[in-house]
Amino acid sequence: MRLSKKILSIKASPIRKFFKYTESAKKAGKKVYFLNIGQPDVSTPPVFMEAIRNDGRDIVEYGPSAGSIEMIDAVKDYYKRYDMDFAREEIIVTCGGSEALRFIIDCICDEGDEVIVPEPFYTNYGAFVRASGGVIVPVTTRAEDGYRYADRDALESLITPRTKALLLTNPGNPTGVVLTEGEMELIGAVARENDLFIISDEVYREFVYDGKPMSSFGQIKDIADRTVIVDSVSKRFSACGARIGVALSKNRELTENLLKLAQSRLCAPTLDQLGSAALYRLPSDYFDDIRAEFERRRNAVCEELAKIDGVVFSKPPGAFYITVKLPVNDAEEFLLWLLQNFDDGGETVMFTPAEDFYATEGLGRSEIRIAYVLSESELRRAVELIRLALAAWNRRLSERVVSAAVIERANAV
Amino acid sequence: MRLSKKILSIKASPIRKFFKYTESAKKAGKKVYFLNIGQPDVSTPPVFMEAIRNDGRDIVEYGPSAGSIEMIDAVKDYYKRYDMDFAREEIIVTCGGSEALRFIIDCICDEGDEVIVPEPFYTNYGAFVRASGGVIVPVTTRAEDGYRYADRDALESLITPRTKALLLTNPGNPTGVVLTEGEMELIGAVARENDLFIISDEVYREFVYDGKPMSSFGQIKDIADRTVIVDSVSKRFSACGARIGVALSKNRELTENLLKLAQSRLCAPTLDQLGSAALYRLPSDYFDDIRAEFERRRNAVCEELAKIDGVVFSKPPGAFYITVKLPVNDAEEFLLWLLQNFDDGGETVMFTPAEDFYATEGLGRSEIRIAYVLSESELRRAVELIRLALAAWNRRLSERVVSAAVIERANAV
Repeated sequence: MRLSKKILSIKASPIRKFFKYTESAKKAGKKVYFLNIGQPDVSTPPVFMEAIRNDGRDIVEYGPSAGSIEMIDAVKDYYKRYDMDFAREEIIVTCGGSEALRFIIDCICDEGDEVIVPEPFYTNYGAFVRASGGVIVPVTTRAEDGYRYADRDALESLITPRTKALLLTNPGNPTGVVLTEGEMELIGAVARENDLFIISDEVYREFVYDGKPMSSFGQIKDIADRTVIVDSVSKRFSACGARIGVALSKNRELTENLLKLAQSRLCAPTLDQLGSAALYRLPSDYFDDIRAEFERRRNAVCEELAKIDGVVFSKPPGAFYITVKLPVNDAEEFLLWLLQNFDDGGETVMFTPAEDFYATEGLGRSEIRIAYVLSESELRRAVELIRLALAAWNRRLSERVVSAAVIERANAV
Repeated sequence: MRLSKKILSIKASPIRKFFKYTESAKKAGKKVYFLNIGQPDVSTPPVFMEAIRNDGRDIVEYGPSAGSIEMIDAVKDYYKRYDMDFAREEIIVTCGGSEALRFIIDCICDEGDEVIVPEPFYTNYGAFVRASGGVIVPVTTRAEDGYRYADRDALESLITPRTKALLLTNPGNPTGVVLTEGEMELIGAVARENDLFIISDEVYREFVYDGKPMSSFGQIKDIADRTVIVDSVSKRFSACGARIGVALSKNRELTENLLKLAQSRLCAPTLDQLGSAALYRLPSDYFDDIRAEFERRRNAVCEELAKIDGVVFSKPPGAFYITVKLPVNDAEEFLLWLLQNFDDGGETVMFTPAEDFYATEGLGRSEIRIAYVLSESELRRAVELIRLALAAWNRRLSERVVSAAVIERANAV
């Protein structure tokens, strides 16, 4: 009665292990600033609940496996705004972007097949690829290079006969990196020349700052047959609990096979699709204020980070995350100390240690991910707390070095 | 750019191929009685929508990956009614019973691992097992034996070193078979002696007729560590579109690993969990009238079937399905003829050919599944239509035999 090797190779969520420490910190009366949350603090647009509340059906029944026609058409029309023309048959509605990713990887990977992913990456990619029997092959990026990964040599050196796809998050989580059009062309060329799928996770689309346009791999015509886009209502419409996502591809063999998996689980939630169709039909200026607010927050976080000696980061052009290299050896150890032993005026801070975003053993130990989903003033205070804590942590370390030296000398006597 | 072998080995939903024919029949002005639907026609209890409508949150946010505490506790309390005591940690809320099945099989099967399933079986089991890289090993049952499968020799003859689990639907889909307590003890003993998991899909629990008690593998103490139960709000509460299910097991290693997959997809839908918690808290007599209505329907279908010469069936003790062997060589061919060429007073009938419920090639060609989710009078008429159509079909065949003989003779001249 053994469990599968593949499930045993998947790690439990890294966030869980810190839960008891944040709970203890709160119980001890500390205020904790949470910089680890991937849930926007923006209200879900009221059209979502209105569409559900106003529905008069007696039976909450199954919908079509590919998604309700209303939802598919709302997605179709939304993509037209960005010059992407998908037919109904090219759109599969899923239980969140997560299910879309899982289904796509299942359609592509057999045991031992390889998927190239820039690291650091969204940790759940590891679970999806392993659950399909596949292997993640990381393209390592560095804080010093702004975590950019569109490097032909680096990508091509990793391609083997088992490589099936490039899996990218654009805009990026956890780095906030946004590909330039030139970088997208390069990645497209690598995929074309090496006959790979491009799985483009674009759930943070529209979280792009500095007045830059948002680009999608769906806009590049000569890779249309090898591109599959993942989208979701979670981030853009602050509806994470709706669990409605979508997979879009002009590769009909792929969408027909995605449909088999969609049929096997019958349908995505009926009411949440009603609400989500209304979200996709919001006017295109819906996001303008939200984008401006997140841009202010990003700027505030970067201004505060710039005040800390020894940190390495680049101002991220998109999403609502920033990955930062701290002047510590082990960010996880530093975090545990922050939650258990540090406070400033009764306040401390929680972030995500970045080690689990890396597939390569030993990388990322000094790095953390900050999600800027708090107000600007809270964010400034939270980063200030990191700065104050770093100073205290380093004082403590040097004291420890001194006391260790004293003990050593005493022992030597 | 090839898709995975495993996805290509999964068949598209068999129901899809008939869709265009039912649409044409409707367009031609025929009334079609649908006996192929797994969606109860009972109203979803109003508490479901009330719980959602009354919710006042601004942000439809992520819930805990294992399920909301309200939902978990509602499930926990429901199971206590049946003397099953599950701890919160032993309950994982999923996106429908389908996701629970998928996660369980992923936790158990690596490539080439075997799962024993009585055939005919719910076709999507095939997709779940293949998607995990596993193999379904069928225990063949027969209409003549009432599709019963609790046979020690039959089960044990299929066990190999790769066998990981027995996967059962109880009450059964598509057969309506309900295991007796003795049969459950026997299956439990086989699992224990051969160190197998028991995956017990009990989504039709409470659809048990003739005053018989409902039994669950969760009630058998000495197999508690190897049993995992799948449940759902879809059938019992007529809430198929909510996509809320649950996996329950006292095997903590299993639930901890199920939780990894639950974490990878973040959470089940937040609002649907609110509504579903209210469903699980309905009083225990909620189902009495519904059960009585389905029992009347089952009796009506069986009475009408008994009027047809040459059919083989047993009165099914549970669920809302009956599998019937018809006096035809190919039920699919018969169905296409029913939809395209037959009517009686402008009416015809649709059912599910059973061949796709079998893993063994060539079995089930004469069999069909009837779902009795129409009113009693509609069901009587629908089965009458099958009877009339069979008479016309057999007349047609004998005429064809005659005309073939005439042609053959003419050719011989």
